[in-house]
Amino acid sequence: MTEASTMQPANRGDARICRGCWDQMHMPIPIRGPLALPFRAFGITRSKMNPNICTICERSFRYVKKQSHVAASATILFADIRGFTHLSERIERIRLSEIVSLFQDRCAQAIWAHDGIVNKQMGDGLMAIFNFPIIRKDHAEAAIRAGRDIQRLCAAALGSLQFDDLKGETLGVGVGIHSGEVEIGEFSSFRSDFTAIGGTVNLASRLESQAEAGEILISPETAAEAAALTMGAGTRLLVLKGIDQPVEARVLAAH
Amino acid sequence: MTEASTMQPANRGDARICRGCWDQMHMPIPIRGPLALPFRAFGITRSKMNPNICTICERSFRYVKKQSHVAASATILFADIRGFTHLSERIERIRLSEIVSLFQDRCAQAIWAHDGIVNKQMGDGLMAIFNFPIIRKDHAEAAIRAGRDIQRLCAAALGSLQFDDLKGETLGVGVGIHSGEVEIGEFSSFRSDFTAIGGTVNLASRLESQAEAGEILISPETAAEAAALTMGAGTRLLVLKGIDQPVEARVLAAH
Repeated sequence: MTEASTMQPANRGDARICRGCWDQMHMPIPIRGPLALPFRAFGITRSKMNPNICTICERSFRYVKKQSHVAASATILFADIRGFTHLSERIERIRLSEIVSLFQDRCAQAIWAHDGIVNKQMGDGLMAIFNFPIIRKDHAEAAIRAGRDIQRLCAAALGSLQFDDLKGETLGVGVGIHSGEVEIGEFSSFRSDFTAIGGTVNLASRLESQAEAGEILISPETAAEAAALTMGAGTRLLVLKGIDQPVEARVLAAH
Repeated sequence: MTEASTMQPANRGDARICRGCWDQMHMPIPIRGPLALPFRAFGITRSKMNPNICTICERSFRYVKKQSHVAASATILFADIRGFTHLSERIERIRLSEIVSLFQDRCAQAIWAHDGIVNKQMGDGLMAIFNFPIIRKDHAEAAIRAGRDIQRLCAAALGSLQFDDLKGETLGVGVGIHSGEVEIGEFSSFRSDFTAIGGTVNLASRLESQAEAGEILISPETAAEAAALTMGAGTRLLVLKGIDQPVEARVLAAH
């Protein structure tokens, strides 16, 4: 857990009790300090999804919510490394793993700083949830701020890498964000970690797939909830696979 | 673990010791029977990735391999529900979760039957690895057999669902399979479950994205290793995003 705690941003502080269990059940589960020790003996430790929540939130959704899944309002963020498939044909696997590690760590740092959870990691990509299990009424804003931090931290980390085989090619990250109703819970009988599914998740993923390196594409629904952060941003009309209506996304570009 | 064990196919039997720890380290870790009890007290239980491996394989890659990642020869299988984004705009979230659960459970059953692991689940999709940590020299064949079982089991399970809102639309699964060198290990400092990355993984994912409902798209490399299973199969020339050369995939179609 040493690495996880050094990863954690200072500005949110290290919670002494699990913020997820508190927000969902008003139950104080110690995750740091001496009171956390007896819990650790029972396998209750800080979650890998966010070090301010515990493994009860992560793995015992049915216990926390008394149901296998629930409807919830949330903001979903997807991020991935643009051109990674192309890149992976060109450079050594050992360098690829360096890039993936940098990307995953910087993204997590950005997401945790705004109370989101890293719900899924898929090689050069990830999915984050805002507003569950840590409740943030301003989850749309929190996700956009996390997206900006992702772009800033990844640009610094990936920009410092030197690849002879990458002459003239950019190594950047694309981000997509959408807010709405999702179904959160456990969706297989053999795994106990929760996730979110539904149209909201799919639209966020589609937006991300259209983002160029350095861009954050934000749905109109998220933008409406975070006017102060998206004012003056450009728009782009997108026709997305599987989505009937074109989507007028807001485009935030890293500088 | 009750549900996991009922999911497990009878034909591979229930291993008494972890097959991953045995294949990787020749270390006998009991996972079933009375000898497994003291291990359980230390949190060593059957893995959610495959009930014939244990949580040491799943979460302690650095301990098992003495490195944070290693190169390995493997076959990668991706599967997802075709048209799920379109579907998720049309039907209730509660029905979506029913579909996702059926899909994930049937796929796992098929993958475990051929010694693969369910490495990643992403809503309506998943990624499986064959030949790690359970070693199977015939991993290409094993993955193709798993793909056929996925198509057969999902067709039976999803075909029995009735949706008024889905008139005339197909609810089917696409599968993509590719074999080659991958980098397997832990690629972030804060999560301890391993995964596979590299060009082989990306090509498998791209193939899956091109598979129609009911189809299994197999790369030439996998097909060459499993001639008996792909003989007589049709071919399709695919131009894939991020891949320089067109790929002549073998197409297996469910009947």
